[in-house]
Amino acid sequence: MPTRRLDERAIIAMIRHMQNPPPAGYLGIGDDAAFVPGDSRGWLISQDMLVENTHFRWDWAEPEQVGRKAAEVNLSDIAAMGGTPVAALTSLALPPDTPFERVERLYRGLTEAFWTHGVVVLGGDTVGTRGAFVLDVTVIGFPSEQGAICRHGIQPGDRIFVTGSLGLSYAGYQLLEHQSRWPGTSPEEARALSAHLEPKARVALGQALAPHVRTMTDVSDGLWAEVQDLMSDSGFGAEIWLDTLPILEDTRLVAARFDASPVNWALFGGEDYELMMTVPLEHVRALRQKAEGHGANVAEIGVITPAAGIRWLDHGQAVTVEGEGFNHFAH
Amino acid sequence: MPTRRLDERAIIAMIRHMQNPPPAGYLGIGDDAAFVPGDSRGWLISQDMLVENTHFRWDWAEPEQVGRKAAEVNLSDIAAMGGTPVAALTSLALPPDTPFERVERLYRGLTEAFWTHGVVVLGGDTVGTRGAFVLDVTVIGFPSEQGAICRHGIQPGDRIFVTGSLGLSYAGYQLLEHQSRWPGTSPEEARALSAHLEPKARVALGQALAPHVRTMTDVSDGLWAEVQDLMSDSGFGAEIWLDTLPILEDTRLVAARFDASPVNWALFGGEDYELMMTVPLEHVRALRQKAEGHGANVAEIGVITPAAGIRWLDHGQAVTVEGEGFNHFAH
Repeated sequence: MPTRRLDERAIIAMIRHMQNPPPAGYLGIGDDAAFVPGDSRGWLISQDMLVENTHFRWDWAEPEQVGRKAAEVNLSDIAAMGGTPVAALTSLALPPDTPFERVERLYRGLTEAFWTHGVVVLGGDTVGTRGAFVLDVTVIGFPSEQGAICRHGIQPGDRIFVTGSLGLSYAGYQLLEHQSRWPGTSPEEARALSAHLEPKARVALGQALAPHVRTMTDVSDGLWAEVQDLMSDSGFGAEIWLDTLPILEDTRLVAARFDASPVNWALFGGEDYELMMTVPLEHVRALRQKAEGHGANVAEIGVITPAAGIRWLDHGQAVTVEGEGFNHFAH
Repeated sequence: MPTRRLDERAIIAMIRHMQNPPPAGYLGIGDDAAFVPGDSRGWLISQDMLVENTHFRWDWAEPEQVGRKAAEVNLSDIAAMGGTPVAALTSLALPPDTPFERVERLYRGLTEAFWTHGVVVLGGDTVGTRGAFVLDVTVIGFPSEQGAICRHGIQPGDRIFVTGSLGLSYAGYQLLEHQSRWPGTSPEEARALSAHLEPKARVALGQALAPHVRTMTDVSDGLWAEVQDLMSDSGFGAEIWLDTLPILEDTRLVAARFDASPVNWALFGGEDYELMMTVPLEHVRALRQKAEGHGANVAEIGVITPAAGIRWLDHGQAVTVEGEGFNHFAH
């Protein structure tokens, strides 16, 4: 599904300005997860809501897939802080015609995904609704030994890296929009649909890379939006090398089918749940080694610049990237 | 609004049985809040979801009241553990026609209520929906110095106490159902509507009473349901003295208007957000003194018995109380 952006920002700004800033040492609104200091490392806490027909469709996904995805997108927020997830709460709003079996299968997916990461569901809420099915998940966890790795705090000269590949989730979304159904009819369809319906949070990789990064975030809203966010209020800028974006052949094959640009999918598609990080030059080698040790690809896609603004380069040529976030709130 | 019960229980049982039990020292599904052990006191965490037309109606409540209530019902879960709330996350599902001003006013109520208790909103999620407006709130906090005060663990001979009064929230709900609107046209209407639309969590009182109770819970689902829950799997029972239930004259006046039984409202109405606790005999005096020091009423309404089952007595006479929970999931 397309990711949200515009109205969410206004609401977040409103909430942020309505209250006093959080006490010193707390990490509040605006990062992947919040941080509350405690006796030793303190706690990360994150909450992500999935709504029927906004984030998923029952005719597109098995209930287990919806449950797994709800777990993984929350785990991804903890991963983006370099953290270790520990426990979860889930809230469920159920329309009256919801089959019990659907809820059971959803929780089978959700608890299995959490179990893989040692996370136990400790509670939550279950309510009725005359509206859409809603699943809201909260995950708490420990930050990395380096503390909570924030989204902000970039420094000029730092290299920008991204894990895995970008755009494949959106390829899956496009296939679903055009009547393909999981598991698809070709290997690239299967992998694209799986990327969209069954994303995997980069928890172990986030922990491994944490000692070598200055900032980290997950790429849930598309690279374009995440890069904008990275800059905010820093006074610095970035150069992004579009020709270095990690885009799989699968993504290119599906994009070609729709006569679409795979680079645009990487920039604006969203829901890849990869990690984007800025890395001091002297850590680049160690970062690459750690990623390799985890069997993961990391791509160097740009650099933080002292001058504000974002320059998009394609094989060294400046190009215009006109971004607009997708909007969940539109009719 | 009537409280949920039946299907929620089946779903909770399903989730609980689907996964391994939580690690030792954790408090999982089934209490007011979950507990995760940490270096010193550990953390309480609780999550409560409010859905438009299930838990509130925009033509019944000001947006500020909806926000305040969302904060207070979550704070009440922490209060029921004797805990100290610290921080909150909020998730919002917004229908496309939601006025921004409504969200702003809702958050004004929510952040003010939290601010009163020193709680800061640290994040959450904001998404679009084609269904009902949903507000899901997570609160984390410290447990009492005595640890997390659980709902379970009753002992025969312990006295059962409840704070404040019961049934007034349901009186307010009945008034709203019969076209009364806040702030009403008489003092008792005003107080009943306020009890329903603007409940107050017993946070300070819960902390003060914690050293003197064996178990504690909040009365969110009506006394009948909470007493059933208290017994579950304990092998013990209880005697409840209906003539001692704390029912205000306001509640009786409104009940009389609808030719209804105020005792039934106390038993089945729900949403009072008072605290119910079981108290060892030797602590009863101290408990009463602590409550008095907080300007709060506590009523002794029964006793835990060695024999299983619940006996309902009215002035010493056994009576039949046929209970059935209300059901949010019904059409």
